[in-house]
Amino acid sequence: MVNVAILGGSGYTALELMRILLRHPHVTLVAVTSRQEETPLVSELHHSLSGRIKLRTEPFDADRLVQRGVHCAFGCLPHGTSMATIPALLEQGVRVIDLSADYRLRDPNVYAQWYGESHADLAHLAQAVYGLPEVYGEEIATAQLIANPGCYPQTAILGLAPLVAGKHIDLKQIIVDSKSGVSGAGRTPKLNYHFPECNESVVAYSVGTHRHAPEMEQVLGDIADAPVEVIFTPHLIPMDRGIFSTIYAVPRRAISSESSAMSQAQLLDLYRHFYAKAPFIRVVDHIPATKDTLATNYLDVTARVVRDRIVILACEDNLVRGAAGVAVQNFNRMYGFPEHTALI
Amino acid sequence: MVNVAILGGSGYTALELMRILLRHPHVTLVAVTSRQEETPLVSELHHSLSGRIKLRTEPFDADRLVQRGVHCAFGCLPHGTSMATIPALLEQGVRVIDLSADYRLRDPNVYAQWYGESHADLAHLAQAVYGLPEVYGEEIATAQLIANPGCYPQTAILGLAPLVAGKHIDLKQIIVDSKSGVSGAGRTPKLNYHFPECNESVVAYSVGTHRHAPEMEQVLGDIADAPVEVIFTPHLIPMDRGIFSTIYAVPRRAISSESSAMSQAQLLDLYRHFYAKAPFIRVVDHIPATKDTLATNYLDVTARVVRDRIVILACEDNLVRGAAGVAVQNFNRMYGFPEHTALI
Amino acid sequence: MVNVAILGGSGYTALELMRILLRHPHVTLVAVTSRQEETPLVSELHHSLSGRIKLRTEPFDADRLVQRGVHCAFGCLPHGTSMATIPALLEQGVRVIDLSADYRLRDPNVYAQWYGESHADLAHLAQAVYGLPEVYGEEIATAQLIANPGCYPQTAILGLAPLVAGKHIDLKQIIVDSKSGVSGAGRTPKLNYHFPECNESVVAYSVGTHRHAPEMEQVLGDIADAPVEVIFTPHLIPMDRGIFSTIYAVPRRAISSESSAMSQAQLLDLYRHFYAKAPFIRVVDHIPATKDTLATNYLDVTARVVRDRIVILACEDNLVRGAAGVAVQNFNRMYGFPEHTALI
Amino acid sequence: MVNVAILGGSGYTALELMRILLRHPHVTLVAVTSRQEETPLVSELHHSLSGRIKLRTEPFDADRLVQRGVHCAFGCLPHGTSMATIPALLEQGVRVIDLSADYRLRDPNVYAQWYGESHADLAHLAQAVYGLPEVYGEEIATAQLIANPGCYPQTAILGLAPLVAGKHIDLKQIIVDSKSGVSGAGRTPKLNYHFPECNESVVAYSVGTHRHAPEMEQVLGDIADAPVEVIFTPHLIPMDRGIFSTIYAVPRRAISSESSAMSQAQLLDLYRHFYAKAPFIRVVDHIPATKDTLATNYLDVTARVVRDRIVILACEDNLVRGAAGVAVQNFNRMYGFPEHTALI
Repeated sequence: MVNVAILGGSGYTALELMRILLRHPHVTLVAVTSRQEETPLVSELHHSLSGRIKLRTEPFDADRLVQRGVHCAFGCLPHGTSMATIPALLEQGVRVIDLSADYRLRDPNVYAQWYGESHADLAHLAQAVYGLPEVYGEEIATAQLIANPGCYPQTAILGLAPLVAGKHIDLKQIIVDSKSGVSGAGRTPKLNYHFPECNESVVAYSVGTHRHAPEMEQVLGDIADAPVEVIFTPHLIPMDRGIFSTIYAVPRRAISSESSAMSQAQLLDLYRHFYAKAPFIRVVDHIPATKDTLATNYLDVTARVVRDRIVILACEDNLVRGAAGVAVQNFNRMYGFPEHTALI
Repeated sequence: MVNVAILGGSGYTALELMRILLRHPHVTLVAVTSRQEETPLVSELHHSLSGRIKLRTEPFDADRLVQRGVHCAFGCLPHGTSMATIPALLEQGVRVIDLSADYRLRDPNVYAQWYGESHADLAHLAQAVYGLPEVYGEEIATAQLIANPGCYPQTAILGLAPLVAGKHIDLKQIIVDSKSGVSGAGRTPKLNYHFPECNESVVAYSVGTHRHAPEMEQVLGDIADAPVEVIFTPHLIPMDRGIFSTIYAVPRRAISSESSAMSQAQLLDLYRHFYAKAPFIRVVDHIPATKDTLATNYLDVTARVVRDRIVILACEDNLVRGAAGVAVQNFNRMYGFPEHTALI
Repeated sequence: MVNVAILGGSGYTALELMRILLRHPHVTLVAVTSRQEETPLVSELHHSLSGRIKLRTEPFDADRLVQRGVHCAFGCLPHGTSMATIPALLEQGVRVIDLSADYRLRDPNVYAQWYGESHADLAHLAQAVYGLPEVYGEEIATAQLIANPGCYPQTAILGLAPLVAGKHIDLKQIIVDSKSGVSGAGRTPKLNYHFPECNESVVAYSVGTHRHAPEMEQVLGDIADAPVEVIFTPHLIPMDRGIFSTIYAVPRRAISSESSAMSQAQLLDLYRHFYAKAPFIRVVDHIPATKDTLATNYLDVTARVVRDRIVILACEDNLVRGAAGVAVQNFNRMYGFPEHTALI
Repeated sequence: MVNVAILGGSGYTALELMRILLRHPHVTLVAVTSRQEETPLVSELHHSLSGRIKLRTEPFDADRLVQRGVHCAFGCLPHGTSMATIPALLEQGVRVIDLSADYRLRDPNVYAQWYGESHADLAHLAQAVYGLPEVYGEEIATAQLIANPGCYPQTAILGLAPLVAGKHIDLKQIIVDSKSGVSGAGRTPKLNYHFPECNESVVAYSVGTHRHAPEMEQVLGDIADAPVEVIFTPHLIPMDRGIFSTIYAVPRRAISSESSAMSQAQLLDLYRHFYAKAPFIRVVDHIPATKDTLATNYLDVTARVVRDRIVILACEDNLVRGAAGVAVQNFNRMYGFPEHTALI
């Protein structure tokens, strides 16, 4: 059994993690921390866990967690707080899967530019592995620190990887138009997420300024081994969960000798071949809906040739595949469990 | 033209009032107050009013409002604040339609019991008229201070009035089970009204303790000229607007000589007769849905005989009929305009 | 391994059953029948099962199912069709868990009265066991034919059982006011369930005429060993899943020597004691929300003393606890697996 | 007073038209036709109109409508049916505002290509005026036949018009990514629009094949006086009403002498200047939400410079601005009423 702690247990990704881990046959959940002054029962923070977990939340204390035999911690803390908290565990040999953004951007200058503060843990930043199993699967297995990927970037990266890897598209003309359910905004009440404000409404936000754009560019750049630029527009959709990304790309002419564009059939074949060994990526013929992936770790993707463009349609559940599910997928790789354990 | 001020312009009922009043041919909106320190444009608080209103919000100042010729103020302030604010206007002759709960309960002891503080304006409390046009229509016409009714009570009172007036039911065995959209909870962000908390969920709240219960009992008591008791359970429904009340009553045996219960046809006839002159009460044969009344000032009602009970089904838009619309209906009566002005 | 067939695979309860059974370590899903003329892949009917199930739907053929070694069939057929289909399997020794209403009402006259047709399988009707594990747990273990309970009745029956069993309430004055998500209406498109009709709206339906009322009365009558009468009003709520029932009961005076009503604490104690051994019934102090039970087999319940009444608040996921989940709970009892297998 | 008939009264646009026209001080609604065999009351088809309209629906009969003095008909019939019905009215001098697609595409070959049937009324097609007041305002005033614009095209056309008119962008690199509420799909129940299918889900549809694309290209081509190409992807959003279009365009280098891209401020100035006299187009600084335009005739638009692209964000209510509202705006122009009559 692997002894697991959850850091920052009051939000939605922590809840989703606990739901999954309570089903995991090789996990013992030994601690859930929270910065709340009272130390409520976890089941008081999350009524849906009534009768399922007896732990009381506790303040973060690295030594105490280590003494209680924690092998692995899942970090569900806000960025900034995460890099101030996690080093104490890493230094005592605990493995950490960090769901915040703190260890995702390799270049601390990029971090500072997008997150507005200097990176406070350069040593561990250099060792962190970006936790996208379909791209960095081998490094994940042996990593001590996983930077679990952002919800939006997974749809963009996995939606584009087959085309970017083969340099089938213009790397400077990528547009990612994403639609997300409201749980992606977290559990802290704000006017924008107040039910009567966002229900029955659609709105774009952070147009050209969303922090997930550099994350997409970094990983797609790794895959392409060349710089990639992404125009990214996220939208808020009146639903709890799910991200649907519509991605527009311009094929490079050289890809086909017979015609100016890749054929529809070639396109889907390329995707099927690329993801042949990825159990959680489903390349489908139909246009997938976010509901097809609801509460699962699957990412569904298809692609269409439209005039002289390629339009990719990718969707996932933002809390499972987009956060807690892929974190457990990473965990399974780190500890040698079958990749789908607790995820089916 | 009647010069109108809105007190407390940042919430949903204020927005709805402005939408209606901007259509009113005899109203000039001269001021919108807000307790916010900055004095934003009204259209910044409510983007839907962009291009429709040029006023900037301002701090409340009774003298200044009077100097600018305000004849009538609509109070959209929280209870407690309302009774601390409105007297200064009343004393200078301004007529006030107060949408808070402060002047609804005639007995200050009942107020103190349910609202947890002593009433601070007994003088005006004694003069206030409860603003339900179908019940107190004549007093409203000449009132200086209107206590605009609560959203839930209107469905209960108007749903029960024909039966209570004729003493057709047991006044001590009334159950009101109400379902409300989330806008009824106001515009202040709280966890309970955070989109991912209340979307895709139903929950009861304030079971047996909701402040609208004594309001129902007071007005139904007036109609019956006898004490009335109500068991009231409100529920939160994942939608913006609308209240649906399902009301259970026990008929008194004496009402029909031939049978032990009123017939279905007699029941609807009783309602149609009772509301023959009420333009905004629609007695319908079908079971109404809240959507039938969406964004209108109508209250739709029907009733059914079920075994030995009467089940009444009444619905309305909580922001229009339940608040801003009935406020304008009261305003029209106060100033002698046709009752439906700006409400169709 | 138990070989399982699903009869009628195109609807929501069948989908939910497959989701659960695909996780069940002791089940092999060998056939999914459908009355559709084409025989689509199951994953074409339900895109969410892409990559998870390779079966193609097939027409129902009892002999062929038996030849392929089916031990147990879950019937997801409409009432009427179910009792015309299932006998052929029962006669060849297959055990059946029928999710339709056909075998729920013990008295064929009551069936004929509420369902508008004579019962066509009186022989098996007499043997059927009502599949509510918390009430008929022992009979379920050895049954060949289970009449899986309706979604609404479970909230009413389990919400009332502790009070009815102890005769703590007046059995003739029970009101059940239920609120259900739209998936309860099935997957066949109709105007009432067309998105823009039922979204942002609440409406009651089948007032005093819903077929789940006699089911509640039969089972509560068994528990009380006396006739029970229920006034039942279902409502349609704009959400996918979940049922919330608000139940009003009148305590009998004799229950407490000191006071005229049972105390709040006594009430919850009674419930906790009654359900001490029921792993899926959670008696909670707070008012539960349907979201607390989303996609789980839990039924959450609490109760409140309000004036001289008892108000019970019970909720569940209508597709899991209300249908597919309790079906698997029954299956686990029938085959001796731990009750929660595949349900956590 | 203008005597008005509604052709095809059972759908959502007809309902919205009636709501608006019942407020119009210069309109008498004299007939509502329907192809339904029974001739129900309009208020039976639309419960929200209970007590507001006494007309019974009737079969379409051009002579009878003319005899009853109909001056203007609003066509809410499906495409195909519309062009088979409307000529009989036009030939007797009735003016028609057709909300179907039948008279929108000037070139009958394009119509045949996208709608799969030959155009059946070439004579009137040649006379039809595309009813977008901000573009064809003068022609509308004197037209006998208005082809009321599609819902999506208005957001695309009005969102792009200032840039296209001035040739500020590459006319062959336009991407329109639109998100629509479900009412846009009409009132006929289908599985795709069944509540539990589309609630809590986002999906793209008609990728590269939606019939509104040629409509956008035709009108933008008129404005540019040059061919325009649009990649258009519509999405279904779980809400009743509203369209949000996110539009990506590539600026032409020549537009600014100092820099390679138009500045943000220049961009908004361009829009404000272009729409200075358009009362229903609101150029806003903030990113608009569909809810800002809910149930109004406003189209809100803003634009952002993102890297080397322009991103335009435009939204509207699909039933009002996108259909019934703009139809009445056209009507007001045709009969010389102030443009906003009945629309505020």
